[in-house]
Amino acid sequence: MAVYTEVSDEALRAFLTDYGLGELVAFRGIAEGVENSNFALKTTTGDYILTLYERRVDPAELPWFLGLMEHLVGHGLDCPAPVRGRDGEALRALAGRPAAICTFLPGVWPRRVRPEHLAPLGEALARLHVAGGDFAPTRPNALGPPGWAPLLERCRADGDAVQPGLVAALDQALAGILAQWPVGLPVGHIHADLFPDNVFFLEREGVPQVSGLIDFYFACTDLLAYDIAVCLNAWCFELDFSFNVTKARALLRGYSAVRSLSGAERAALPVLARGAALRFLLTRLFDWVNTPAGAMVTRKDPLEYFRKLRFFLSAENAEAVGG
Amino acid sequence: MAVYTEVSDEALRAFLTDYGLGELVAFRGIAEGVENSNFALKTTTGDYILTLYERRVDPAELPWFLGLMEHLVGHGLDCPAPVRGRDGEALRALAGRPAAICTFLPGVWPRRVRPEHLAPLGEALARLHVAGGDFAPTRPNALGPPGWAPLLERCRADGDAVQPGLVAALDQALAGILAQWPVGLPVGHIHADLFPDNVFFLEREGVPQVSGLIDFYFACTDLLAYDIAVCLNAWCFELDFSFNVTKARALLRGYSAVRSLSGAERAALPVLARGAALRFLLTRLFDWVNTPAGAMVTRKDPLEYFRKLRFFLSAENAEAVGG
Repeated sequence: MAVYTEVSDEALRAFLTDYGLGELVAFRGIAEGVENSNFALKTTTGDYILTLYERRVDPAELPWFLGLMEHLVGHGLDCPAPVRGRDGEALRALAGRPAAICTFLPGVWPRRVRPEHLAPLGEALARLHVAGGDFAPTRPNALGPPGWAPLLERCRADGDAVQPGLVAALDQALAGILAQWPVGLPVGHIHADLFPDNVFFLEREGVPQVSGLIDFYFACTDLLAYDIAVCLNAWCFELDFSFNVTKARALLRGYSAVRSLSGAERAALPVLARGAALRFLLTRLFDWVNTPAGAMVTRKDPLEYFRKLRFFLSAENAEAVGG
Repeated sequence: MAVYTEVSDEALRAFLTDYGLGELVAFRGIAEGVENSNFALKTTTGDYILTLYERRVDPAELPWFLGLMEHLVGHGLDCPAPVRGRDGEALRALAGRPAAICTFLPGVWPRRVRPEHLAPLGEALARLHVAGGDFAPTRPNALGPPGWAPLLERCRADGDAVQPGLVAALDQALAGILAQWPVGLPVGHIHADLFPDNVFFLEREGVPQVSGLIDFYFACTDLLAYDIAVCLNAWCFELDFSFNVTKARALLRGYSAVRSLSGAERAALPVLARGAALRFLLTRLFDWVNTPAGAMVTRKDPLEYFRKLRFFLSAENAEAVGG
């Protein structure tokens, strides 16, 4: 559910007078998204998405996210373009929340990932990395390697209730990942959360094409190849948690067609993929042990990522993960 | 949250080939609605709503609902028009659920009801009643007076846990309401659930106009004036549960401008309003005592309707409820 804050129609109408978007035609909450409140907004000038930023987002970081999106659109990437108000500001306030309107992107996110999605995904990811190249401001990855040990500490007391022995296994995995973490790989702006529900596709003559990338609110400045590692986790496992190396190879083939991966980047893929698995495992575990059982929030199973982590721990080289 | 069933993109594309709606452009889950899964569907021919009917809806009743909606649209009412497939069928199947596509209606439902909404609401409700007049098939109101005692029985064991003395108070109220329930009032097809989130408005020169009525899946054949009583409950209380008689009068003024209320209908408004309060109280109470605390479902507070019921029990004549 992704409407946490309701917007009165008077407040919405007043808000829209600050833009040159024409008259209000329709306004519906969108079910997708878990961090913020999203609304489909239709005016006489077209379709838009209105986002109210909820408590998990630091308002001080919003200008960076919106600036990156605007930069990426300006460099030809299909991602939401922040719409500026009459005063030139894209970041505004509505219903007591920071709020922004962005352009609407066509397309459908794949509920079931097929191998044909992966090469276009890889190309789009590489285009994102290239387009972000000359956006100067940076944002550290709060959920990168330095953040994992503190997160694990906050799960230490309750983690084994999820699965006996889990905390000790994560201690061991974390130590190994940090010891092997690559240095000197190319750095840039990464999406860091490019799951299937953040990628829209349209089909052209039966072939999926990426029509848009959305939800840049985990974006940050980190190893470019780490973004590939996130996609290996998010796109390349089947429902039974078997790793589909055909999908992984297609992802890397698509990516490499746009941006060359260095040998060092390719060699680092297994440890980067372990790190990405651990990152999603830890945030899910944290939410799991810190969400009251009766809360109206969908908790995602952390153990899915323990299975993915174990696969990547067993991957001895880049070839094993499609590289 | 109103996406209970996910639809794979292949299944959606295959489904759309049964229609003449052009190519798929976008597909997003809608947050509004609690009974069914609703999706905003955009194709090259326009905007539509795709609904998957979930377990609370009896599939055998869907042809009646869709038939009524089609009839109403044919008689000039702004409500969703079921879109027929190439084979002439509007009711189809998708992702293992009964499914239908309807036309998209412009407008915004009022998050905060203002007195100006009520006369247009009343007019729209009366137009619905008039337009439904010559739709021959009928559907009994499963949540009408004969259904209340059985529903109360199923809350008897746990009802007082919600508020001490609640069950005895409801026994007494139910007996009084059934004893006074009117006979001989005009009968027709009613919406029976016309809450603010089921009514879209657009403003013309600052004046709200009804642009559409949606969600006909509680519609049935019952006393027309009972629909007004539902609206008195759903639209005429302030957040502090004070009854706003100005709103009620505007509702009745708008209604009467389109369809004359008989003296008997007007006189019955207090008991009809008590019945409507009891109906929503009982279904909420049933959900409350039968929903596990950890379930991912938003339970609505039944006691809101106990307060409304008590107000209507204190209303001695039609004037007291705006009639």
